[in-house]
Amino acid sequence: MTEPEHRDESPEMVAEIPVHDDAGWLTDAFIAAVHAAVEAGDSAEARRLAGDLHEADMADLVDALPEADRPVFVQLMGDKFDYTALTEMDEAVRVKLLEDLPAADIAEGLGELDSDDAVYILEDLDEEDQAAILDELPLSERVQLERALDYPEESAGRRMQTDFIAVPPFWTVGQTIDYLREDKDLPDTFYEVYVVDPGFRLVGSLALDRILRTQRAAKISTIMEEDPHSVAVKADQEEVARLFERYNLVSTAVVDDSNRLVGVLTIDDIVDVIQEEAAEDMKALAGVGDEEISDSVLTIARSRIVWLLFNLGTGLLSATVISQFEGTIEAMVALAVLMPIVASLGGNAGTQTMTVAVRAIATEELDTRNIWRVLRREVMVSFLNGSLLACLIGATAGLWFQNHGLGIVIASAIIINMFCAGLAGLMIPMTLHRFKVDPAIASSVFVTMVTDVIGFFAFLGIAALWFRLPL
Amino acid sequence: MTEPEHRDESPEMVAEIPVHDDAGWLTDAFIAAVHAAVEAGDSAEARRLAGDLHEADMADLVDALPEADRPVFVQLMGDKFDYTALTEMDEAVRVKLLEDLPAADIAEGLGELDSDDAVYILEDLDEEDQAAILDELPLSERVQLERALDYPEESAGRRMQTDFIAVPPFWTVGQTIDYLREDKDLPDTFYEVYVVDPGFRLVGSLALDRILRTQRAAKISTIMEEDPHSVAVKADQEEVARLFERYNLVSTAVVDDSNRLVGVLTIDDIVDVIQEEAAEDMKALAGVGDEEISDSVLTIARSRIVWLLFNLGTGLLSATVISQFEGTIEAMVALAVLMPIVASLGGNAGTQTMTVAVRAIATEELDTRNIWRVLRREVMVSFLNGSLLACLIGATAGLWFQNHGLGIVIASAIIINMFCAGLAGLMIPMTLHRFKVDPAIASSVFVTMVTDVIGFFAFLGIAALWFRLPL
Repeated sequence: MTEPEHRDESPEMVAEIPVHDDAGWLTDAFIAAVHAAVEAGDSAEARRLAGDLHEADMADLVDALPEADRPVFVQLMGDKFDYTALTEMDEAVRVKLLEDLPAADIAEGLGELDSDDAVYILEDLDEEDQAAILDELPLSERVQLERALDYPEESAGRRMQTDFIAVPPFWTVGQTIDYLREDKDLPDTFYEVYVVDPGFRLVGSLALDRILRTQRAAKISTIMEEDPHSVAVKADQEEVARLFERYNLVSTAVVDDSNRLVGVLTIDDIVDVIQEEAAEDMKALAGVGDEEISDSVLTIARSRIVWLLFNLGTGLLSATVISQFEGTIEAMVALAVLMPIVASLGGNAGTQTMTVAVRAIATEELDTRNIWRVLRREVMVSFLNGSLLACLIGATAGLWFQNHGLGIVIASAIIINMFCAGLAGLMIPMTLHRFKVDPAIASSVFVTMVTDVIGFFAFLGIAALWFRLPL
Repeated sequence: MTEPEHRDESPEMVAEIPVHDDAGWLTDAFIAAVHAAVEAGDSAEARRLAGDLHEADMADLVDALPEADRPVFVQLMGDKFDYTALTEMDEAVRVKLLEDLPAADIAEGLGELDSDDAVYILEDLDEEDQAAILDELPLSERVQLERALDYPEESAGRRMQTDFIAVPPFWTVGQTIDYLREDKDLPDTFYEVYVVDPGFRLVGSLALDRILRTQRAAKISTIMEEDPHSVAVKADQEEVARLFERYNLVSTAVVDDSNRLVGVLTIDDIVDVIQEEAAEDMKALAGVGDEEISDSVLTIARSRIVWLLFNLGTGLLSATVISQFEGTIEAMVALAVLMPIVASLGGNAGTQTMTVAVRAIATEELDTRNIWRVLRREVMVSFLNGSLLACLIGATAGLWFQNHGLGIVIASAIIINMFCAGLAGLMIPMTLHRFKVDPAIASSVFVTMVTDVIGFFAFLGIAALWFRLPL
């Protein structure tokens, strides 16, 4: 009696395991079902369960399976496994999976993809693995991918898609639409049609909505954007991302040195670039290399030790400064109690300025045109906040150790160190940028070095003078 | 003789000031020319020079003019000033400019914009200024904007555009194209057409390339995406950005509680959101509020003092810990020389782990499902790097002060503090996230507190025990 009623209400829920939970993630039950199918080697069941997943969900599913089961799963899925999913995985997961799959399988999977996705997957492999896979591809695709891999890493040429739609300027809207309806070999998705001359040089672009709004008889040359945005094939991806942001682009043409159209960049690739660059800057500021949450212990340890070693160096430098005042500290041990506060406040203030500066340099909001205005402002901010903190810590220290002189000494040291912190936090990233060093990578070490050394030196030095203590 | 030759080669370069330099920025000469026109009150010249600028360039131009000249420039430009440019300016510049312009002018400028841009410009103004401008708008637009402003800040409803194209499922491709050709009131740009039932509930979506590839006779219902992505009007913009990234979207429908189509979000708005969120996290980690490079001294000082005060608090806590060992330091002043190294290395290691964790939480790569795996890894990384640093600093300290015991004491303290740093760097952001506090904002203070306190306590405590020193 109850059975049919249930089926009436939600026939799918009885027969099927729910795939997504409320937050949009894959359910544990679904992952367990796929896992069971993989363990049983049941290809039909795996394909039935996971065959229609979106590439992003497919990537999550692979990630949720035990490492050893991942290649088995991909092979059981056969042609139902969309290799685009590989572009959505963490690098470490992707590289391991590709090592575990036969080159011929990978080649077949890559053959189905747009060229930019295929390049994205291949570029992280070592040359040997790359060659093995490329050898299995048909000649035309192999040549196309090899050419893309020849462009420098993080260039427009690496990221671009080489399938695109180009029409001559003398066509009409009607001809263009008819062409799109007939050609079966179009890119998977596209947002613009490009207009080229007989030498395949870019002369215009045309958003799809413009085509749709226009009467069939209109000439392409009369409605196209005549001065289209384009990027050089060797342009750095960060520069390309700025262009997309600045002009709110959805796609743009990529041209070679002779302005010939060679590819197209779309916003989905650029969104990844923007995320990557933001994450890189953030990690670099904290002294972390290009590590991912899925990386191995050794990779991570290595990515972090460099910065720690630098910090050990600056730490020893600070220690050397302090050791000059051993006699002073022995005579007044309260100095040892308070000195970390001076260094630490300076370090924090310096980090604040530096972070804002690094970010503003990256987004091109800060450059030589406004550096003096920003510097003047930083100095005033340092002075304001420094004075406030100096009063607070001066009063606290004076009361704590019942020594007004100590309060005045620490207050003066704070003001000096905050001032230097503001200066260093701005000028160090600007200087590194000027010498073409990424300010995100190197600024932290230098800024901390300045604020530590000046903090300890100012505090202990002023104390020695004020109290006429031995060195 | 030479004159005509020059004009033959590049007629434009002689008659016109170049607008852009090689890097794509506005030239100083161009800015100076506009400035001169503004100073002279020469509306015709200003319009001739700057009338055809892209909105992003227009924003740069306004920013490059002296503050007092900006409203004059906008008024001289008249209808040639595209208010979209306001969306490309820094908030501080925009708000000041809007305060200086008559409400009627602003209303006229906003009337030309897509609703999302108009809302973006209005939302930062105080209520009084908003009301003055809204009062000048035609009723229908005013109601539309007021409704958008009623949605919570940073929600999909605030960011969405309310002009969009919706067609019934029984239409054909041909009917849809004819409709697009005839309707003059279409949004400025669009990438998808939405399919709605008679109750205006969303039943499908259709990318423009799909329409263009399909024969006129095909029914919309047969080619539409039947399970289109959509976001709730109250959804947070960060959540929306994740959806765009995850599924590589270019636009998505926004629906109300009854699944009725109320607006559209496009990728250009989302790119801004992604940038904002990344910048917010980066600044928050460094204890900087939502400040911009164009903000005033007071705004910036305020945005930074909170974090400095917190750090003063943790600094005093560390000082209290150190003061427990005054006797120990007096007996062996080398401890004061070396103790900042222990605290600082721990702080740096903690910051590394914390930054990776905060970033991974923000991108949803780290959650309760993989926390134990990541924790185990962090502990191993801490142990590896801690051991290496302990050997180095232990040997250095032992040789420096000719005291092997001191080397062993500092090495042990480093290993303990690095271990705690890894633990704190991971668990503090995860715990904050669990209690719905943004880990980027609060983690730094706690992590530094842990590594400072444990660093000083472990080093001085072990030293006191090892050398049997007084407290």
